Amino acid sequence: MDKNKNISMAVIKRLPKYHRYLSDLLKNDVDRISSKELSRKIGFTASQIRQDLNCFGDFGQQGYGYNVRELYNQISGILGLDREYSMVVLGAGNIGQAVANYTYFEKLGFELKAIFDINPKLVGIKIRDIEIKDIDTLEEYLKNNEIDLGVICVPSRSAQRVCDILTKNDVKSIWNFAPVDLQVPEGTHTENVHLSDSLLTLSYLMNHEE
Amino acid sequence: MDKNKNISMAVIKRLPKYHRYLSDLLKNDVDRISSKELSRKIGFTASQIRQDLNCFGDFGQQGYGYNVRELYNQISGILGLDREYSMVVLGAGNIGQAVANYTYFEKLGFELKAIFDINPKLVGIKIRDIEIKDIDTLEEYLKNNEIDLGVICVPSRSAQRVCDILTKNDVKSIWNFAPVDLQVPEGTHTENVHLSDSLLTLSYLMNHEE
Repeated sequence: MDKNKNISMAVIKRLPKYHRYLSDLLKNDVDRISSKELSRKIGFTASQIRQDLNCFGDFGQQGYGYNVRELYNQISGILGLDREYSMVVLGAGNIGQAVANYTYFEKLGFELKAIFDINPKLVGIKIRDIEIKDIDTLEEYLKNNEIDLGVICVPSRSAQRVCDILTKNDVKSIWNFAPVDLQVPEGTHTENVHLSDSLLTLSYLMNHEE
Repeated sequence: MDKNKNISMAVIKRLPKYHRYLSDLLKNDVDRISSKELSRKIGFTASQIRQDLNCFGDFGQQGYGYNVRELYNQISGILGLDREYSMVVLGAGNIGQAVANYTYFEKLGFELKAIFDINPKLVGIKIRDIEIKDIDTLEEYLKNNEIDLGVICVPSRSAQRVCDILTKNDVKSIWNFAPVDLQVPEGTHTENVHLSDSLLTLSYLMNHEE
């Protein structure tokens, strides 16, 4: 499979959903599925599904459909879930604690290595056996530990500063929960979870009936 | 302004970002801004900005730019932020507590009315002076209280059941944090925050360098 093929962001954004549905099918012991059945479950058209999956290789088989495990494994590989990642959480407030406690991320291969906070009342407390460290020690920590992913859960006003420490110390991927758009050096990957943007989208829909 | 005009979902999804940036400009006492300056800050092209804002009315003025407060107020109105909403949180785990504690939502007009959980150890505990109620009392609560928005923060396996109780009792909008896609009756608005989908998108990007 050509990992450098140019895939549109729209297709990439749909891949985790395929992964989630295939994982459920596997849990329910479904061995194979037609694009039509998958379409009914997942809510994309069958032709959309065939088109999406064709971006990555030749998965389906005429008259047989998709082998669920094979497709699941392939999509896991495409998503990079065939390796492990080291992760640190910055900010141990509500969202930081929620991310740190969400063990499903660990099952996907994202291992929580450390949590940092500025609040002396939180420093020393353990979340899942991992002690919250003082954020002043972040830079030193990063010099001694190879970290793939930083999860930013600090308030907006501190987010860019924390992000800069991460990127200057070779953390190449940022998962950002602060309601700001971060400036990062070229070659850094960022993905935002902007809760209030999501709520405002819903608020728009609530006020504009079809 | 014609509230029923057909606006594409792509434009709608950009509106909260305009709202966020204009709010920051107001905080910094910026009275007016050209589409070029706004473009530099927000990262959309100036022509994209003009096109987006033209969907909703005639905001800019040649040679003057946008009046920040006026534009902010207009976009707030379009997003439905000129009224208040009543909100309940279902599930008082990490994510539920994070949402319940996030006072910014209240500033936007979303008032937290009640929190429900199935865990007897959590029932009775207060979050921001709001007592966590037994989820078995949800249906009765909804019969006696008009609720605009239900925030689903329960595990996947219970999400559809809780969603059904909400929609059967006239809750028209669902903000869903459970990693499942919910079935809702026509006329119900849903917006999903799928954290693991977001993480997997990032994981894809980490493995497919430009």
